[in-house]
Amino acid sequence: MSLSLIPGQKLIAATHNPGKAVEIAALLEGRFEIVAAGSLGLPEPEETETTFVGNAILKARHAAMRAGMVALADDSGLSIAALNGDPGVYSARWAGPAKDFVRAAEVIWHKLDTARAAQGEAFTTTAWFTCALAVAWPEGHACVFEGRIDGQIVKPRGNRGFGYDPVFQPEGYDVTFAEMDPDAKDSISHRRRAFAQLKAALLA
Amino acid sequence: MSLSLIPGQKLIAATHNPGKAVEIAALLEGRFEIVAAGSLGLPEPEETETTFVGNAILKARHAAMRAGMVALADDSGLSIAALNGDPGVYSARWAGPAKDFVRAAEVIWHKLDTARAAQGEAFTTTAWFTCALAVAWPEGHACVFEGRIDGQIVKPRGNRGFGYDPVFQPEGYDVTFAEMDPDAKDSISHRRRAFAQLKAALLA
Repeated sequence: MSLSLIPGQKLIAATHNPGKAVEIAALLEGRFEIVAAGSLGLPEPEETETTFVGNAILKARHAAMRAGMVALADDSGLSIAALNGDPGVYSARWAGPAKDFVRAAEVIWHKLDTARAAQGEAFTTTAWFTCALAVAWPEGHACVFEGRIDGQIVKPRGNRGFGYDPVFQPEGYDVTFAEMDPDAKDSISHRRRAFAQLKAALLA
Repeated sequence: MSLSLIPGQKLIAATHNPGKAVEIAALLEGRFEIVAAGSLGLPEPEETETTFVGNAILKARHAAMRAGMVALADDSGLSIAALNGDPGVYSARWAGPAKDFVRAAEVIWHKLDTARAAQGEAFTTTAWFTCALAVAWPEGHACVFEGRIDGQIVKPRGNRGFGYDPVFQPEGYDVTFAEMDPDAKDSISHRRRAFAQLKAALLA
């Protein structure tokens, strides 16, 4: 048992989204053999935790203990200061089963207008995206890595990216994530930062 | 940056209890130079998480990022099935500022009697102690280890140990933690198991 990973080692990506497994393989620069948990017939656990780190550990452990192999999981979302960190771990759930992020963005702006009226001068549109990554071993222990990017909630602009990208403008930029070139967005994203931390720690 | 620890390395014990720092040094077999966070004047963070792992990471990260050194923290408690896992992360808080665990045990039995009446045949006295250990690096990433021991809640017996030891009878034993020889208890405890997992992973 050790906390290092060996190049070429098989890693379970604790996701049922095949696209996500491919993306994880690329973010790890092809240094591992990535197997999607879905392709092994592993069940998907319920995300019962209240933090990104908690949900990432839960998903990675669930897969690692069932597959008997090291597993990797992520949990990501948008947190808004004026909404006490919401939608946070409920970011995907706010879009509903139809994954309607246009509607979710409307909900956010409706809640922000209410918050602005209630909070007065203290009100801000400060927000941040977080990505938590967990690597879990079959013995039950896990390591966690987090990436974050700060910015502001704005009215929706742009049609690239996905999820809340149109309402998020990263600090130091005058475009939203959905207006940015995908490579430019990827180079500063919370996911990239979390993977950079993982790679520095586990692959060095 | 790496996830291994070097023998002799200085480690912050994220605790303000000097006895706990000494105990941690012993559990790690004197292989590290343990420095208590309290002795460095580091503030104690509020334990705002809802899980043992979450609180352990919170405390370890808080110390590591402020001290610029690797830090270790633990969070432990008693979970009771019939009480939906309570007292759980609130184990210490149920004893109040006076750390009155005689009173806390009475509260547990009062709640168990209520649960027994409500749950009928489904009622059990199943309980478990959990110890979560987190090692955090100043860069923000962390590794977590967990130990658990299963047993039953019984009427208080014995005067050794501390906390909820008098009401906890481990599986396979007919004595409570508070009736056991301290070495015998330590050899099977949740803390010992969590430290064994940490040592196997980080010191191998």
